[in-house]
Amino acid sequence: MGKKNITFSDIAKYTGFSKTTVSRYFNNPDSLTLENQQIIADALEKLNYKENKVARILANGKTEFIGIIIPNLYLHYYSEILSQILKTYETYGYKFLVFTGDDHETTERNYIQELLAYKIEGMIILSHTIPSRELANYPIPIVTIEREDQYVSSVNTDNYMGGIQATSLLVKTGADVLIHINADLSPQVPSYGRIRGFSDICKEYHLPHELILTDTGHTYEETSRILRELLEDIDRKYPDKVKGIFLPNDTFANIMLNHLIQKYGSLPDDYKLIGFDDSPVSREAIVPISTVGQQIEKIAVTAVEILNAQITDRHKRKPELSAEPIHKIIPPILINRDTTK
Amino acid sequence: MGKKNITFSDIAKYTGFSKTTVSRYFNNPDSLTLENQQIIADALEKLNYKENKVARILANGKTEFIGIIIPNLYLHYYSEILSQILKTYETYGYKFLVFTGDDHETTERNYIQELLAYKIEGMIILSHTIPSRELANYPIPIVTIEREDQYVSSVNTDNYMGGIQATSLLVKTGADVLIHINADLSPQVPSYGRIRGFSDICKEYHLPHELILTDTGHTYEETSRILRELLEDIDRKYPDKVKGIFLPNDTFANIMLNHLIQKYGSLPDDYKLIGFDDSPVSREAIVPISTVGQQIEKIAVTAVEILNAQITDRHKRKPELSAEPIHKIIPPILINRDTTK
Repeated sequence: MGKKNITFSDIAKYTGFSKTTVSRYFNNPDSLTLENQQIIADALEKLNYKENKVARILANGKTEFIGIIIPNLYLHYYSEILSQILKTYETYGYKFLVFTGDDHETTERNYIQELLAYKIEGMIILSHTIPSRELANYPIPIVTIEREDQYVSSVNTDNYMGGIQATSLLVKTGADVLIHINADLSPQVPSYGRIRGFSDICKEYHLPHELILTDTGHTYEETSRILRELLEDIDRKYPDKVKGIFLPNDTFANIMLNHLIQKYGSLPDDYKLIGFDDSPVSREAIVPISTVGQQIEKIAVTAVEILNAQITDRHKRKPELSAEPIHKIIPPILINRDTTK
Repeated sequence: MGKKNITFSDIAKYTGFSKTTVSRYFNNPDSLTLENQQIIADALEKLNYKENKVARILANGKTEFIGIIIPNLYLHYYSEILSQILKTYETYGYKFLVFTGDDHETTERNYIQELLAYKIEGMIILSHTIPSRELANYPIPIVTIEREDQYVSSVNTDNYMGGIQATSLLVKTGADVLIHINADLSPQVPSYGRIRGFSDICKEYHLPHELILTDTGHTYEETSRILRELLEDIDRKYPDKVKGIFLPNDTFANIMLNHLIQKYGSLPDDYKLIGFDDSPVSREAIVPISTVGQQIEKIAVTAVEILNAQITDRHKRKPELSAEPIHKIIPPILINRDTTK
């Protein structure tokens, strides 16, 4: 504690070399004879010199820093993705600077500018705030996860396949009418694939269905009220049908399940439910909820792999300005629990 | 993209000054005349020079980096604390390097050594792996949250008060016997205060009670099985009593609630439950669960405040080696929902 760092001056004084020569040992060792390199190396050991990575960054440009911008950590999906990205430290050694955007666009841009000044080597972006066309102009590799990604590399779940799997499972349980509730998403967002998957399979097999795209609320209380009202509508509209409802995530599926149990005392036979994500709440609900699981570890590892390849490439030679963005699609896993029995 | 950074050489060439003079403008501007400072400043603007923070770090030692070490992001408590710490960026400007330890002690030590080499200015530690005596030896300020903290500064919830509040609420609902289930914690861990709070108030008021300290499992499935068995024991042991059960967190309280509802069809009148943390699951459960809420935003902001004060202090003058650790205690908030009606 309080022990002074050894500086280039100290090393110069100890070895009798100039500071320039000492600096060359760090930045350009080939320019010294092996003998002189050895003298300086021995001096470092004697003086108990601790590597100052900041000095190394100046020399070779490798900070091993990656920025992560994430909308929030409230949704389990985001905290789990972050957790899996952070775990890659043991494999790749990248250190992650993490920022939660919360849709504060200006702060997010400031933060990115700061990170660039600190010479980060790449970014993984989950927030939806900044268009990919703008992201593509930043001078470092960028990979996005589950957001608009036209101009940058990305990793996404196969949402279309997930929509088809969820709908098919509801059909197999004997549902007479299929219902998908979702926010009124932009077709550019990957999760729009869930809506397309649902619609395509319903149309292809001429299945009676209803697509409810609506404001689903921004707080738990709002969402709960909206889903209760939708349930009343569905109850009134399809009294004698078996209703198969595909919810856009497990939190929503759990709210719908609780409304049904509060109304009927148990999950009625004429209601089949499926969520999306395989969040803990789907497993921990009063009736374990069927869901389309995202392979979150695989998504996270793939994002870091793509970024690492691009970073390594840049250290080797001139950046290939013509490189096309890479888009990886990770298949989902259907998890059949008790709400589709 | 691919545009070359402006270097000190470029600025020297443009202004006609030596590189040493240019360097002084950044590191020691007072040593230049105002006139010469102006010439260089104008050149920077002309050349569109982007500040290289790495060079600044070498000059003044301020990286504005803080390391955060957290056990995992699976438990909502941790992801919420992390979220609130990250939000302080807008106030203090610190950039956070985040690492999840997962009890990998060696990796955690390696990571800290790396961060020190990168000249981070402080650390916030939530993982339990490294004893505070060892943490106190690192040459930067450290603040811990909810872990053993004898030799370092810390911020903790008033767990003792939380234990008393939870127990008192169960008594008020008419519970004849009070039960607290928890892991067999070390008395050095702050959350042990919950056990002491429960025991002290039960003894002081001669309340019939049972303290169950046991292995509560490491996965959802294990915990669920253990709590189901404990429920069978409690059912057998206290058939005619109103049972007030204080669970160590909301996840456990939700599991117990679901077991009760699966067994009896609804929450029986002779069972009163309370959890801890005010996690989303407590609100989103089939019956909203009463809980002792931690003031997570306040805990996070206080931790950054303490760290910021110590970092600022270090930049001003020689570190006070004799400084005693600061321990801040944040009071909990009792949330009375439907499981204590």
